[in-house]
Amino acid sequence: MGALAHKPKLYEQVAERLEEAIAAGTLRAGDRLPSVRQLSLRERVSVSTVLQAYLHLESVGLIETRPQSGHYVRRRERPRLAEPQVSRPATSATPVTISGLVSRVYQAMRDPRIVQLGGAWPAPELLPTRRLYRELNALTREAGDVGVLYDAPPGCPELRQQLARRSLDWGGALAPEDFIITCGAAEAIHLCLLAVARTGDTIAIESPAYYGTLQAIESLGLKALEIPCSPRHGMELDALEAALERRRVAAVLVVPSFSNPVGSCMPEARRRRLVAMLEARGVPLIEDDLYGDLHFDAERPRTCKSFDTSGNVLLCGSFSKTLAPGFRVGYVAPGRFRERVELLKFSHTIATASLPPLAIARFLEEGGYDRHLRSLRRHLMSQVESMAGGVAEYFPEGTRVARPSGGSLLWVELPPKVDSLALHERAIEAGISIAPGPIFSARPDSYRNFIRLSCGQPWTPRVEAAVSTLGSLARSLA
Amino acid sequence: MGALAHKPKLYEQVAERLEEAIAAGTLRAGDRLPSVRQLSLRERVSVSTVLQAYLHLESVGLIETRPQSGHYVRRRERPRLAEPQVSRPATSATPVTISGLVSRVYQAMRDPRIVQLGGAWPAPELLPTRRLYRELNALTREAGDVGVLYDAPPGCPELRQQLARRSLDWGGALAPEDFIITCGAAEAIHLCLLAVARTGDTIAIESPAYYGTLQAIESLGLKALEIPCSPRHGMELDALEAALERRRVAAVLVVPSFSNPVGSCMPEARRRRLVAMLEARGVPLIEDDLYGDLHFDAERPRTCKSFDTSGNVLLCGSFSKTLAPGFRVGYVAPGRFRERVELLKFSHTIATASLPPLAIARFLEEGGYDRHLRSLRRHLMSQVESMAGGVAEYFPEGTRVARPSGGSLLWVELPPKVDSLALHERAIEAGISIAPGPIFSARPDSYRNFIRLSCGQPWTPRVEAAVSTLGSLARSLA
Repeated sequence: MGALAHKPKLYEQVAERLEEAIAAGTLRAGDRLPSVRQLSLRERVSVSTVLQAYLHLESVGLIETRPQSGHYVRRRERPRLAEPQVSRPATSATPVTISGLVSRVYQAMRDPRIVQLGGAWPAPELLPTRRLYRELNALTREAGDVGVLYDAPPGCPELRQQLARRSLDWGGALAPEDFIITCGAAEAIHLCLLAVARTGDTIAIESPAYYGTLQAIESLGLKALEIPCSPRHGMELDALEAALERRRVAAVLVVPSFSNPVGSCMPEARRRRLVAMLEARGVPLIEDDLYGDLHFDAERPRTCKSFDTSGNVLLCGSFSKTLAPGFRVGYVAPGRFRERVELLKFSHTIATASLPPLAIARFLEEGGYDRHLRSLRRHLMSQVESMAGGVAEYFPEGTRVARPSGGSLLWVELPPKVDSLALHERAIEAGISIAPGPIFSARPDSYRNFIRLSCGQPWTPRVEAAVSTLGSLARSLA
Repeated sequence: MGALAHKPKLYEQVAERLEEAIAAGTLRAGDRLPSVRQLSLRERVSVSTVLQAYLHLESVGLIETRPQSGHYVRRRERPRLAEPQVSRPATSATPVTISGLVSRVYQAMRDPRIVQLGGAWPAPELLPTRRLYRELNALTREAGDVGVLYDAPPGCPELRQQLARRSLDWGGALAPEDFIITCGAAEAIHLCLLAVARTGDTIAIESPAYYGTLQAIESLGLKALEIPCSPRHGMELDALEAALERRRVAAVLVVPSFSNPVGSCMPEARRRRLVAMLEARGVPLIEDDLYGDLHFDAERPRTCKSFDTSGNVLLCGSFSKTLAPGFRVGYVAPGRFRERVELLKFSHTIATASLPPLAIARFLEEGGYDRHLRSLRRHLMSQVESMAGGVAEYFPEGTRVARPSGGSLLWVELPPKVDSLALHERAIEAGISIAPGPIFSARPDSYRNFIRLSCGQPWTPRVEAAVSTLGSLARSLA
């Protein structure tokens, strides 16, 4: 309501206090305000003064009246930004050399003094930590020596049983024997790459792609062939098909549901086509389904694996984005590569830590995972929406932003002049971590004007202030 | 005492019952027998009948009389077998292709119905499981969200602190910053190989070598150059030096303390020479110190790392052989490769499960680890001795056996005609798992007449019976 005159009126003083509470985050979007009568008693002012204050706040767009219900803090409506366009990566395969860059970025991501908009993990307050701890404790009482002994691959039968049960939700019925438990999806992807490719081989991936996957490709001496992607529908299959015509590709690796960093979701018809195309050519498909449970729409997307009739799809997933990153529990259903992946798992880490998968299996057995997922999805959707709103409000004109239909990430295209590596450096100085675009490509000059923002944390004033600061920094670089 | 006649004498009946108790393991080597008076009361026979029974058992070598002390079940003295000779592996580097074989062997190792003389892990009754579980439970009460969050590399500061403290016992003072926590030593070795070598590179290793290491070398597309080893002193350094003259080697990987499968221990002077030789040539040394804490002599061997002045040694270790295989907690002190290994750790598995390293750190902090180790070493030493005795007693003439000075493994050389793969097949049919020699070389025709026996379990009649069966099977193959 602007600077107050010397003698603010009574209703203005009441309105100002409410406005401050909203700005500080004490009152949040969607919160109900006190009733007129309550506030008049609390503030020791007349009912008509409160009414006047509410009218004022409504007129400046901060609150809204809902009939028969009361007054509520309004969700700020911000201009909706355009989406980034289909990516146009280089058409040749590239040895990956992003490690040095990732290292610098990653150092910042784990600094606890810094506002973390860099790392793609959910805030701990969104996770069912107490229940998982209870399961762990029960296991140490009931499970005898199991926790200290090797859980030899394929690992934890109880969890594989639960995964088989849940696979019906993914659109296809897998059996417990189809799964191998891994140290998170990262290890699962690693094992799949080792199983299907030999050094020097080319892996076709989305562009942009998760930097961890690029690093895995780099560390194994493989090459990445980046395929154009639509921010809405993921990998462009015509482009993929053309690439497969042109050169030998050892495998295709996709994140069809809410890809990292873009958040795209491949429509079902395209998934069918992708599976059929690769099956016909005998090119294995590594499906990273890490974010599949985090859909914002009512229905979970079916996995590509559910269309697989020949064992050509290696499905990878984990509980790191939904239950407990620190438990390091993932899995792979490697189809026709099962035996090889199991052996690689053994030589890689021998086994997965024994108790965490068992604790998760019990959590799943006892129910409540679906309820937890519904709540988690609601939070993430609202946080993604708030972040997109913040970007629309604070970032320079010409900024584009993806519209993910799941997950917790926001892919932002800045005006062409803004160098995201410079922005990253300045953001770190300002106490904010982000993931700059170039780490998402095997060619470090790609996506120079892109950043990925994590929406894993609740949208607090601290986060909003960080987004505002980022916006100012981007403006100064534009 | 042979088959009893129609009417066994009274003292023979008494002796027989004692003999049965010894055979069943109710009375064990070193156990004290009841006093003559106690037994006469219990058996309702005269003192002279008991004395006669004891004299008989003594005469057949089953018990012994200790002056002023009583009668004891005798440790059976068995002929001491000769050691195997220095290995003579092929002198060229070999692409590794043992995975199929290992897979078959490994399937048998994890079958719970089978007597496990195959896997190299300690029996659960030798581990401080309850105390580790207590630490885990305390952490879930006290450590907040730490257990569900990523423990980003280098990982668990508390455990790195304890490792630094313990490194004084290894002969060199390392700092907490020198360590990176890993999913067991297996991952540590994997990361080191990735850090120092590129595909097609050659790694010099001991011959025979741990099959997991050979698999890691295979899966990364590296070649193994097998260096001759003495069963007593490990890798032959003259042979290594000659090999380094002949060809480019990307790294040398050794298990200087109680190598797997042989159990050799490299003397300190050789360790110094090895470190200096490789430093002078700029060839990194990967030191697998997995078994270093399991020395039978009074002193722990110094690590090669303790002689490293240039960061050329990458030290790997774990708590899998001493505390809890199923916790999957290992570490690496990668010297000058620290930054690269840390980055690889991130791309490999992102992080190690958060709670297990913390629980181990607390266990170490609170003391009692050294007491536990003393007890564990005593058990393993006695089990190795019993196993060696069993082999001497039951195996065919011409068998040789290594004399490990630490660890829990026994490397057995059978007469040349005995094919250990055939022995393995027959042993599985008889409900016994062993590790046949060929899996310990990149050339599957090596060590055809060798087997590795695990002495991780207490020496029970069940184990002794299995060793006896193995002996018969070996005889039938000889």
